[in-house]
Amino acid sequence: MSVTPPVTTVKTSTRPRLFTPGPVEIPNRILRALSQIPPHHRTDVFREVYKRVSADLQWVHQTEGEVLMLAASGSGAMEACVVNLMSPGQKALCLVGGKFGERWGSICKAYGVPYETIEVPWGHAIPVAEVEKKLDADPSIAVVFGTHSETSTATLHDAKALAAVTKARKRLIVLDAITSLGVHPLPQDEWGVDVVVTGSQKGLMSPPGVATVSLAPWALSAIEGDKLPRFYWDLRKARKNLPAGESAYTPAVSLIYAVGEALLMMKEEGLANVHTRHRKLGAATRAGAQALGWTIFSKSPADSVTALEPPAGVDAGAAVKRLREIHGITVAGGQDHMKGKMLRIGHMGSYDLSDIYVVLGALEECTNALGRPCTGAIEAARRAWEAA
Amino acid sequence: MSVTPPVTTVKTSTRPRLFTPGPVEIPNRILRALSQIPPHHRTDVFREVYKRVSADLQWVHQTEGEVLMLAASGSGAMEACVVNLMSPGQKALCLVGGKFGERWGSICKAYGVPYETIEVPWGHAIPVAEVEKKLDADPSIAVVFGTHSETSTATLHDAKALAAVTKARKRLIVLDAITSLGVHPLPQDEWGVDVVVTGSQKGLMSPPGVATVSLAPWALSAIEGDKLPRFYWDLRKARKNLPAGESAYTPAVSLIYAVGEALLMMKEEGLANVHTRHRKLGAATRAGAQALGWTIFSKSPADSVTALEPPAGVDAGAAVKRLREIHGITVAGGQDHMKGKMLRIGHMGSYDLSDIYVVLGALEECTNALGRPCTGAIEAARRAWEAA
Repeated sequence: MSVTPPVTTVKTSTRPRLFTPGPVEIPNRILRALSQIPPHHRTDVFREVYKRVSADLQWVHQTEGEVLMLAASGSGAMEACVVNLMSPGQKALCLVGGKFGERWGSICKAYGVPYETIEVPWGHAIPVAEVEKKLDADPSIAVVFGTHSETSTATLHDAKALAAVTKARKRLIVLDAITSLGVHPLPQDEWGVDVVVTGSQKGLMSPPGVATVSLAPWALSAIEGDKLPRFYWDLRKARKNLPAGESAYTPAVSLIYAVGEALLMMKEEGLANVHTRHRKLGAATRAGAQALGWTIFSKSPADSVTALEPPAGVDAGAAVKRLREIHGITVAGGQDHMKGKMLRIGHMGSYDLSDIYVVLGALEECTNALGRPCTGAIEAARRAWEAA
Repeated sequence: MSVTPPVTTVKTSTRPRLFTPGPVEIPNRILRALSQIPPHHRTDVFREVYKRVSADLQWVHQTEGEVLMLAASGSGAMEACVVNLMSPGQKALCLVGGKFGERWGSICKAYGVPYETIEVPWGHAIPVAEVEKKLDADPSIAVVFGTHSETSTATLHDAKALAAVTKARKRLIVLDAITSLGVHPLPQDEWGVDVVVTGSQKGLMSPPGVATVSLAPWALSAIEGDKLPRFYWDLRKARKNLPAGESAYTPAVSLIYAVGEALLMMKEEGLANVHTRHRKLGAATRAGAQALGWTIFSKSPADSVTALEPPAGVDAGAAVKRLREIHGITVAGGQDHMKGKMLRIGHMGSYDLSDIYVVLGALEECTNALGRPCTGAIEAARRAWEAA
């Protein structure tokens, strides 16, 4: 390329746009649901809503089990899994390929739960064979805690194979699907995933503040008995009140209306279409960014988030800053040791190909402005979108 | 009275109205704040909001300490107090005069914390002298857990005297102010209340889903050291990120905008005026209900909620039902052993005297319809409001 494409010096946007790996852009329908005058939570009006949202959560999880809602962020629901599944003295296995995998270990540590880890470098998925080996070597491991889509590295794990391995060995598996539910297929009952955790501000397109724990039918009894200390997280209490359309403690009523609206939107689109759309968005984003000289960080890329390393000479932190300051676009940088070295674009929830043009168009400008001449992101994205 | 006042047979209202002891009616300004497109929580825009809301929470708590926000209901914040203040083996004292006082004991029990209780019949406040006696008799008690306004009985406790007693004996006191903050004066630092808990859906006029723990300046160090297992509730992590305008885990961004707007409204009105308004509303509600033959349940009535027992021959449950079905008004019934025997009217947050006319006018109709001829609630309310 002999002529450097033009770069801008003035702000190109009149409104902020969110491309972070959650919270995500909230569709207007959901903002409207959020801002309606909420009823009291111990009324028939709300009980019916609660039951409907609960049933629609079963639909999105593809389970005949129960999906329990908590007023909390996703980390709270992760803690709920640990304290409701682990009995004192039992050992856990934590699968660690990034910041959110690490969190399972931190929770175990806080409660004095003995745990093993399988660790892989960031950007890699945990090899299923290693889990198999570890479980065979250590029969005292009761529960495996893993991540479906690891947000810090934009890496997808093979949930189906992991669940098959744990099921065959009669261990439980809990998957953090916070950035995969409503993005990647995860048919809980069919694949045999015992417990799945998610949050409201990712594929469910709502503000943060509701987190869920989905128990497969055969895993409902796993929360009974002598477990770690539990009060607010006590899922037995959440289960007990569910048939009556009630939560154990005051639920985040407005946020539940938002999640309910999100689920209606997903049902209108159809679950398979939602998954296909995300597959195409992931492919488009990766292809567009690669056309600009950026490298896909993950060896097993998820379709919820794209983690990118910059072309030689381009500073990732400067790109994050310029996207925000010139283009009004918020993306995420790297976390922990990848801080300043990575750019993460979230595209889960309501995004479509036009949104991907927005973020890639801006990234193209930034990459040029930061010293690396490039073009063609949009065309590459469209081709990949069509092929995916 | 020789002529029975008219009773209605058709629905009198075109829209639902909320008079429960929380969640409360949400002012339109707050619904608008709630439905704005929220920024990502790790951006300067939100950090500034978080710091401002945090400072305004200090203002409403009248503390130079720190007010930590959690994505949870009030019960979660209560649990956070127990796990952050109690060291393994330490003993607690729980003050129990109703359902929410009982909850402190349930949390202690879940964590295996040894605890004593002082129990009084529902509707009575815990006598301060008994707390004094208990603390003197048992030097092993480290923390006292009490309730400022007990929602199940609409009973106010003498927070100032309780704090003086614990302070003099070098014990900590934690007060559940979930239905008193922004209603009754509770100057935390001046009265020496170590820790105060509240929730977003009461005096703060917002939907449920944010709860707070306010630590007095001298109580900040009380959460350090070897405590009960804590991860999501770990207030050390919440404190650490507060100066940067960040929460430990993903905050309930939209709800924090709502709470922030509520605090702006309260600052515009002035804290003393907010307290005066509630004092007058409490007096008006009680006087109006008494004029209709209802009895005030509490011996120490709070101004956030009014708990009423029906006149002879009138069924409280039928009144709750008729208020809802004919008048579109949701009030609360009694809890636990008071189920069906009590009616509780919430009037905390944005309510004014006109709102009290609404609920009393409807209660007057219901009381007549249920067989007890009566009149004069509005006039009695107005007189009491003026005198209070």
